[in-house]
Amino acid sequence: MGGSDDRIERLAELTVAFGTNLQPGQILAVSAEPGHAELVRAVAAAAYRRGARFVDVWYFDPLVKRERIAHAPEETLDFVPSWYGEKVLELGRQRCARLHVAGTTEPDRLAGLDPARAGRDQLPRIRESGQVVSERTTNWCIVPFPTEAWAEQVHPDLPRAEALERLWEEVVHVCRLDEPDPVRAWEERMDATGEAARRLTERRFDALRFEGPGTDLTLGLLPSSRWWNARFSTVDGIPHVPNIPSEEVFTSPDPARADGVVRSTKPLVLADGTIVRGLSVRFEGGRAVEVEAEAGAETLRGLTRLDEGAARLGEVALVDREGRIGRLDTVFWNTLIDENAASHVALGNGFAFAVEDESDAARVNTSGTHIDFMIGGDDVAVTGITGGGDEVPVLRDGAWQL
Amino acid sequence: MGGSDDRIERLAELTVAFGTNLQPGQILAVSAEPGHAELVRAVAAAAYRRGARFVDVWYFDPLVKRERIAHAPEETLDFVPSWYGEKVLELGRQRCARLHVAGTTEPDRLAGLDPARAGRDQLPRIRESGQVVSERTTNWCIVPFPTEAWAEQVHPDLPRAEALERLWEEVVHVCRLDEPDPVRAWEERMDATGEAARRLTERRFDALRFEGPGTDLTLGLLPSSRWWNARFSTVDGIPHVPNIPSEEVFTSPDPARADGVVRSTKPLVLADGTIVRGLSVRFEGGRAVEVEAEAGAETLRGLTRLDEGAARLGEVALVDREGRIGRLDTVFWNTLIDENAASHVALGNGFAFAVEDESDAARVNTSGTHIDFMIGGDDVAVTGITGGGDEVPVLRDGAWQL
Repeated sequence: MGGSDDRIERLAELTVAFGTNLQPGQILAVSAEPGHAELVRAVAAAAYRRGARFVDVWYFDPLVKRERIAHAPEETLDFVPSWYGEKVLELGRQRCARLHVAGTTEPDRLAGLDPARAGRDQLPRIRESGQVVSERTTNWCIVPFPTEAWAEQVHPDLPRAEALERLWEEVVHVCRLDEPDPVRAWEERMDATGEAARRLTERRFDALRFEGPGTDLTLGLLPSSRWWNARFSTVDGIPHVPNIPSEEVFTSPDPARADGVVRSTKPLVLADGTIVRGLSVRFEGGRAVEVEAEAGAETLRGLTRLDEGAARLGEVALVDREGRIGRLDTVFWNTLIDENAASHVALGNGFAFAVEDESDAARVNTSGTHIDFMIGGDDVAVTGITGGGDEVPVLRDGAWQL
Repeated sequence: MGGSDDRIERLAELTVAFGTNLQPGQILAVSAEPGHAELVRAVAAAAYRRGARFVDVWYFDPLVKRERIAHAPEETLDFVPSWYGEKVLELGRQRCARLHVAGTTEPDRLAGLDPARAGRDQLPRIRESGQVVSERTTNWCIVPFPTEAWAEQVHPDLPRAEALERLWEEVVHVCRLDEPDPVRAWEERMDATGEAARRLTERRFDALRFEGPGTDLTLGLLPSSRWWNARFSTVDGIPHVPNIPSEEVFTSPDPARADGVVRSTKPLVLADGTIVRGLSVRFEGGRAVEVEAEAGAETLRGLTRLDEGAARLGEVALVDREGRIGRLDTVFWNTLIDENAASHVALGNGFAFAVEDESDAARVNTSGTHIDFMIGGDDVAVTGITGGGDEVPVLRDGAWQL
């Protein structure tokens, strides 16, 4: 591996060539923060070399948002100019590629502000993005970019420069940039998880059982639950990978059937920064009826009371031992990476596209929240239960058994 | 004067309160570069405190543009996504305020690139901005922000930090931020130049004569030439000041009548960076027929051959001795400030709004270029010539005589 410039260029190349799979003549719309500029410029170079028609960069400044939350009139805090949503819809209509860069650039951006005011401003999230994702009209990707501010969050005990170097090494590893040909390494990985997803779908299990230290949970699947990995395709057939890194295969389960106890195998970082450690959740009839933890339990309990769907499962995802994130034992404070550390479930909103029949789609859980937490590991056995009650090993010691 | 933070806040406050004259409930659209972020954040704070509905920041990254010019397919270099122009037109329809921040952040942004390719990419300039300016639907302003890169250009012989400090002091002075109440100082200044403009318009001079060392030029005015200062107003009656600083009163002259010789009193910096020193131009029948200079003459001659209007005058502007820029004797490498250093004329495109009769508007010079050069100073006398041939002193020793 060369100097940091080389890493940035390799990350940019992977992002453009593999993540978005940018096609010649396409516009690439990038959303990032000013602190991501180095990666954005390298992405622009890579995109133009591939024949991009234009690279349209939107730098969202979290410190401008801070001034808004501090000073703007209360009733304007949820206002979004009409051209924000209009542009996102146009990206779909014009079949553009989209890229979002993740990685905190301003850790104290909301420090000392009124959380109620902050909660009213959802930017840089734009409502219309969900529509464009559902319509599958854009090839899109989210990638991480190590910054000093983020590195300090992940490695608070190290000096700043060392923390940044450590985070870079970790990101290089989990993005497989330390492979001679990262795109090929990812193609192979996607072939493997794609094959696992295909077999899981084929088996049409009625339920999955997780067994391990502190965990014995059985959750039901819907009759047409389909398993996905991160190899997506647009309506026009452009394959792309919306998350780099991505290790999971996932589907949406039956929100009415989950029973037993599950112990979280990793700390969970909530959106407001609360860390939940030593989490244990007991489910009955699909509902989380007991939430216990060494720290952060009350905040999580509050979230499960947000709406009817917030205490039920919207997602179940499996990660095998070839996944690179979990074994680093690092909390990245960033869902993009953290949710790929191990097999997990999510309380809250599910994915209608993850079931094949319309009647099942109506049964997928809905909620205003989506909270992933890790329940897997090499010492957690995952077993499929067929409609006839047969038990079929799915993961043992983190290896696929299908 | 306090620390640099205080200067930034004072500049932001002047910009919002006086330059754009932002109204409560308005959206403020800011275009800037990432290197201007400190000012942009202070502007956001000032705008939200005044009741802005939203501050929409567009950071244009010159190093992303660099990658485009270096690598993009040739035929795409003048492409602009549809939503760029659409947004600008929407700013007009929604009666927004607009702010542009000037000041080089990346001096070598185009170094080593093919000038022909660079010339095809006009961004961040957006064609539709001209329409919105003409329709007077937005209250807008351009302000300078001192950066290290810009300071190095202006004071190349000083150490970087000292150069920046010197440039800050100069910008503070020319923006009248060293006055106890900068807004009031500017209101007074605008009253004075507004009064001069009113009197000049009232006199309906047939021609103006400039006399000084190396200069004896008579240029004709159009019958309905109207003089303006920078106190503009929107169609809805919102007064605003499109340039901070602004010292000039200006109009568009008769492009068919300019005779004599004029010597430039300041170095002229062309858009491509060429410096023209010791410039002398001879006019005959409105046309620049001889262009001589100690340096840069050939580049300027090339520009005057761009089109028919490029060798004729589109603007004449008068600056009195109360103007703060000229006496600093600094070349700012930035038209926003440099063009206010002294009385000047411009070869090339004129302003249709600067004449009151439609028949005169058709006579205003048109061209694809507009090159201001300084011809005034305390030792250049400006005299008005009436239709009857009477001579009326206009400026003597830099003081108004009207």
